[in-house]
Amino acid sequence: MADPSLNALVDALRRLPGVGVKSASRMAYHLLQHDREGAQLLAQALMQATARIRQCSLCHTFTEEEVCPTCRDPQRDASKLCVVETPADQAALERTAAYRGRYFVLMGKLSPLDGIGPQDIGLGKLFQRATDGLVQEVILATNFTAEGEATAHVIGEALKQRGLKVTRLARGVPAGSELEYVDLGTIAHALVDRR
Amino acid sequence: MADPSLNALVDALRRLPGVGVKSASRMAYHLLQHDREGAQLLAQALMQATARIRQCSLCHTFTEEEVCPTCRDPQRDASKLCVVETPADQAALERTAAYRGRYFVLMGKLSPLDGIGPQDIGLGKLFQRATDGLVQEVILATNFTAEGEATAHVIGEALKQRGLKVTRLARGVPAGSELEYVDLGTIAHALVDRR
Repeated sequence: MADPSLNALVDALRRLPGVGVKSASRMAYHLLQHDREGAQLLAQALMQATARIRQCSLCHTFTEEEVCPTCRDPQRDASKLCVVETPADQAALERTAAYRGRYFVLMGKLSPLDGIGPQDIGLGKLFQRATDGLVQEVILATNFTAEGEATAHVIGEALKQRGLKVTRLARGVPAGSELEYVDLGTIAHALVDRR
Repeated sequence: MADPSLNALVDALRRLPGVGVKSASRMAYHLLQHDREGAQLLAQALMQATARIRQCSLCHTFTEEEVCPTCRDPQRDASKLCVVETPADQAALERTAAYRGRYFVLMGKLSPLDGIGPQDIGLGKLFQRATDGLVQEVILATNFTAEGEATAHVIGEALKQRGLKVTRLARGVPAGSELEYVDLGTIAHALVDRR
């Protein structure tokens, strides 16, 4: 198609994660043919979100305010600080309703190959917050990937030196799974961490 | 997450075809975390496309002008008119570079159950264009689905009554496929239409 606006729309949609040129064309045609109202709504939502959403000055998560509702909530247990990689991970933990402490969101993970070092994930700020006198336990909830584990290790070592209690989410067999189908590394970890 | 802008963005992204709540959240977090420029670009592209793109007054395809480049192109064979359901179908035919005639885009298909009748897919306009004296052959290239076939049948019958030559895209075995794995209906059609 020769229309510059249509090409621009397809190109812009391709910047969404998981969207290739075929899906982008399908989305563009769908919006133009059946849902122009949806397209305008999406444009407004994008402008508003990029303009309003910034990072909490205390925990670095996304928020529209200077300090996020979780950091401001006096009901939250200030003695526990849970370190996660992304706001999506934080949301997953929140959905469990099993944690009532505070958070620190790294907005990434240590990844020397991509040039992402301690300052890029706000470790200075994290250490400052963890040693504010209120925090007694830091729960490392980074992902169980190579980079997530490395990030947890680095943070854990640094915080232990500062005399804090540092814990890591338990590794083990997922709820509802049958041992026969669980990978060996997971079973081995579950054996070592048995209780 | 409690942020209204973030919720609004996730809701708006869900209006894209094939995007559920999980993908929408992933897209929203990705844009906010890694590609705010992409988000603004997408917002602009959406606004521009919905404002500028309309339908060609001759063939109903998407265009930014009164008459689309294909309808204006004097190199195109005006004696052939190819009827397709959507601009995406038209784009697929154009990519083959095997057709140099003109198009008529229905922007839908007959679907009585959804309340889509002849006037909704511009059949009056199509008949008018097909009987302009220039068109000698109408090629029905609607999809080979139940509704596409029904649409082709209705259009074909009406145009034959007006004395026009009406053809349909050939049904048969797809290029590169092995008979063993082709469905029986397709092989049966290929047998009937052998040449």
